[in-house]
Amino acid sequence: MPTETPAGASDDRPAGALAETLAAIRPADPRALAEARAHQDRLTKPRGSLGALEDVAVRLAGAAAACPPPMPEPAALAIFAADHGVHARGVTPWPQEVTVQMVANFLAGGAVANAFAAQAGASVTVVDVGVAADLPDAPGLRRHKVAYGTADLSRGPAMTREQAVAALEAGIAVARDLVAAGARCLITGDMGIANTTASAALICAFTGADPATATGRGTGVDDETHARKVEVVREALRVNDLPADVARDAAPAGGVAWSGVRQEAALRVLAAVGGLEHAAIAGFVLGGAAARVPVILDGVIAGAAALAAAALHPAAIDHCVAGHRSAEPGHAAALAHLGLRPLVDLELRLGEGTGGLLAHPLVCAAVRVMHEVATFDSAGVTEKPV
Amino acid sequence: MPTETPAGASDDRPAGALAETLAAIRPADPRALAEARAHQDRLTKPRGSLGALEDVAVRLAGAAAACPPPMPEPAALAIFAADHGVHARGVTPWPQEVTVQMVANFLAGGAVANAFAAQAGASVTVVDVGVAADLPDAPGLRRHKVAYGTADLSRGPAMTREQAVAALEAGIAVARDLVAAGARCLITGDMGIANTTASAALICAFTGADPATATGRGTGVDDETHARKVEVVREALRVNDLPADVARDAAPAGGVAWSGVRQEAALRVLAAVGGLEHAAIAGFVLGGAAARVPVILDGVIAGAAALAAAALHPAAIDHCVAGHRSAEPGHAAALAHLGLRPLVDLELRLGEGTGGLLAHPLVCAAVRVMHEVATFDSAGVTEKPV
Repeated sequence: MPTETPAGASDDRPAGALAETLAAIRPADPRALAEARAHQDRLTKPRGSLGALEDVAVRLAGAAAACPPPMPEPAALAIFAADHGVHARGVTPWPQEVTVQMVANFLAGGAVANAFAAQAGASVTVVDVGVAADLPDAPGLRRHKVAYGTADLSRGPAMTREQAVAALEAGIAVARDLVAAGARCLITGDMGIANTTASAALICAFTGADPATATGRGTGVDDETHARKVEVVREALRVNDLPADVARDAAPAGGVAWSGVRQEAALRVLAAVGGLEHAAIAGFVLGGAAARVPVILDGVIAGAAALAAAALHPAAIDHCVAGHRSAEPGHAAALAHLGLRPLVDLELRLGEGTGGLLAHPLVCAAVRVMHEVATFDSAGVTEKPV
Repeated sequence: MPTETPAGASDDRPAGALAETLAAIRPADPRALAEARAHQDRLTKPRGSLGALEDVAVRLAGAAAACPPPMPEPAALAIFAADHGVHARGVTPWPQEVTVQMVANFLAGGAVANAFAAQAGASVTVVDVGVAADLPDAPGLRRHKVAYGTADLSRGPAMTREQAVAALEAGIAVARDLVAAGARCLITGDMGIANTTASAALICAFTGADPATATGRGTGVDDETHARKVEVVREALRVNDLPADVARDAAPAGGVAWSGVRQEAALRVLAAVGGLEHAAIAGFVLGGAAARVPVILDGVIAGAAALAAAALHPAAIDHCVAGHRSAEPGHAAALAHLGLRPLVDLELRLGEGTGGLLAHPLVCAAVRVMHEVATFDSAGVTEKPV
C-alpha cells in the first residue's frame, strides 16, 4: 500500500470532486456549432477544402460555446504513470521496472514525449498515479499514488471502486490545476508497462469487441505472447463477469444523457479491468470537459480511458479530439465507438502522449483559420457560382 | 507578352542556372542513412514505434549527409502563381481573376496559407511566375513573370521550351535566395485557377496513368465539368503527342541516373502540358536539393511538378518529403511513382502550400527526436530482450 496519503482522500480536495465535475460538463453548444459551420463557408477557400480540419474547428467552437473558439495554446501534456498486476502473466517482454525508468527519463527530458512537447511548446507534467515503486522528488513530478500498481485483472478486479474513484479524481485535479495555470489545451499521456493489455480489456468491455480482434502487440510481442495476451483479456472479462450486456449498460448510446445506473456500471468496468492511469486519464478528460478546455487524446490507452469517461458522461467526448490512430487494433474500435476521427495516422505505437502532441499544431492550425482568414466579401475574392 | 524582362533572361542570373543546379544535386548519403537508422534503434522507445516519422528523420539525414540532420527550421513557403490557357475550356467553375484576387489575399495575409504559415513560423513569399494580369508592387511579392499565363494545353504546347526553362530558373532563384536568407526548409505552394487540369496531364504523361483515373474534381466541379476535364486532359496528351512511351523516356526509373535524353524528354513534357507554376515548383525542388535543404511538397500540383523535377534529376526526390495526400486522385499516382508517403491525410484540397505547412511541425518533431532523445544506455532504461 502507498506510504503517502492517497490523492482521492487528501484534505485539500473538494468532497465529491467526481460528482461535481460530472455535474459541470455541458455538451457542445448548437448555436456555436452552426455559427462556426456558416463561418467556414464564408472564408476565402473552396467549401470543405480543409477537409477534416474544418470539422475540428467547428467541434472546438461547439465545445467552447464560442465562435471562433479560443486558440488551444499553450498546451499541457500530463503523463499518467502506473503499473499493472497483469504484468505477472507475461503479456509483454518489457520488465516492469521500465515504468519507473521511463518516469525518470521524462523528468530528465530525455524521452520522445519531451522532444515532441518542446516542438509543440507544451509543458510536461508527470503524474505518479500508481507506479510500483517509491519515486524520488523531482521538478515536474506530481504525486497522486493510489496504489503500487493494480491487482492482476485476470484473477479479479484490478482496483477497488474507491481506488478507481481516487485515480479519476487525481486526473480531475491535474486537469483543474493545469487549466488554472493557463493551459488552453490538455493532452493525455501515459506510461505503464502492460497497459495495452488493460486497454484491450476496457475496449472489449465498453464496445463489445472480441479480445482476439481488440488485443494488439503493444510495443512489440511475439506470436506466443500475443496469444497469451488475448487469453488473459478473455479471462479478465470472464473472471470479472463482464459479458456484453454489461458493456451495453456502461457504453454511451448516441445522444442519451448519462444516468446513475450507467455511471455505476462504468465505474465497475473501469475498476475491474482498467489501470490506474486509465482511470486518471478518464478523470483528466472529464476535468478538461468541465472546464471547457479541449482535450487531445493520444492513442489506444487514451481511447480506452475515454470510453470510461464517455460512459460516465457522454458529453465529455464533445470536448475531445482524437490525436492519432495507434497501430493497436483495439484503438480503431474505441474511436469508432466514440465517433472520433484521428488527425495523425503514421503507425506510431509509443504512447506517452506522442500522438496527441503531434496533433496539437494541426488543431491550432484549424482554429487559427477561424481567427485570421479573410472572407470572400472582406478580401474581394469572387466566389464560385453555385 | 510581359511588360517586364522575363526572369529567365534577366542580366543578374547566372547563365545556365538550370544546368548548374542539376550538376550540384547529390543523392542521399548512404553512410548518414545507415547511421541515422542505427541511432533510431538506440533511442529510448521500442524499435520502430515512431512509425513513418522514423523514416522521415532517416531520410533527412541522408539528404543532409549528416546524422542527426539539421533542424528544418525556419521554414519558408513560396507560393508560385500563374494562369492557364486551358481555363477557356471550362474545366473549372471559378473565374480566372480569382488567381490575381488570391495573390492579393496572400499578400494581405488573409488566406489559409497565411494562417498556417503563422502557425508554423514560416515566411511567405508570393512569386508571380505567370499571372494573366499586371500586379501592383507589394511587400512579399517577387516578380518572375514569364508570360501572362500559358497557352491552352489542349490545343498545343502550353509553353515554349524557353518559357519552361525560364520558369524552372525562377523557382531555382527563389529557392537559392530563401536559403541564403536563412531558410532551412522549403515548402511548395501554388495558386492558379485551372491548375489541377495541368497537374492531371503532367501526371498522366509522367506516370502513364489514364486521364479518367488521374483527373479529379479540383476545388469542386460537377459531373459534367469533370467529364469535360477528363476529355481535355486526353486531348492534351494526344495533341501534344505524349503517348506512354514518352512517359517512359521521361520518368525516372529507380536508381538510374539522369541523362541528357531523359532531361530533354522531361522538358518537352513539362512545356507541353505543365503550368508556369509547375515549372517553377520543379525548379524550387531542384534548388532546394542542390542546396541540401529539405523540400516539403504540398499536394497534387507539387506532386505533378516533382515528377518533372525527378525526370530532370531523380536524386532531387531524396531531398523531398510529401507533406500531405490530396483529395485529388492523380496525387496518389504521383506519390506512388515518386516513392513518397504523405504525412498528413485529412482530405484537404486547397493547395496554396497548406498541406506542406501542416506537415512541417511533424517533420521538425521527427528530426528533433534525433537531437534530443536519450539512448537506452544514457538514460539507464532496460532494453527489451531480443
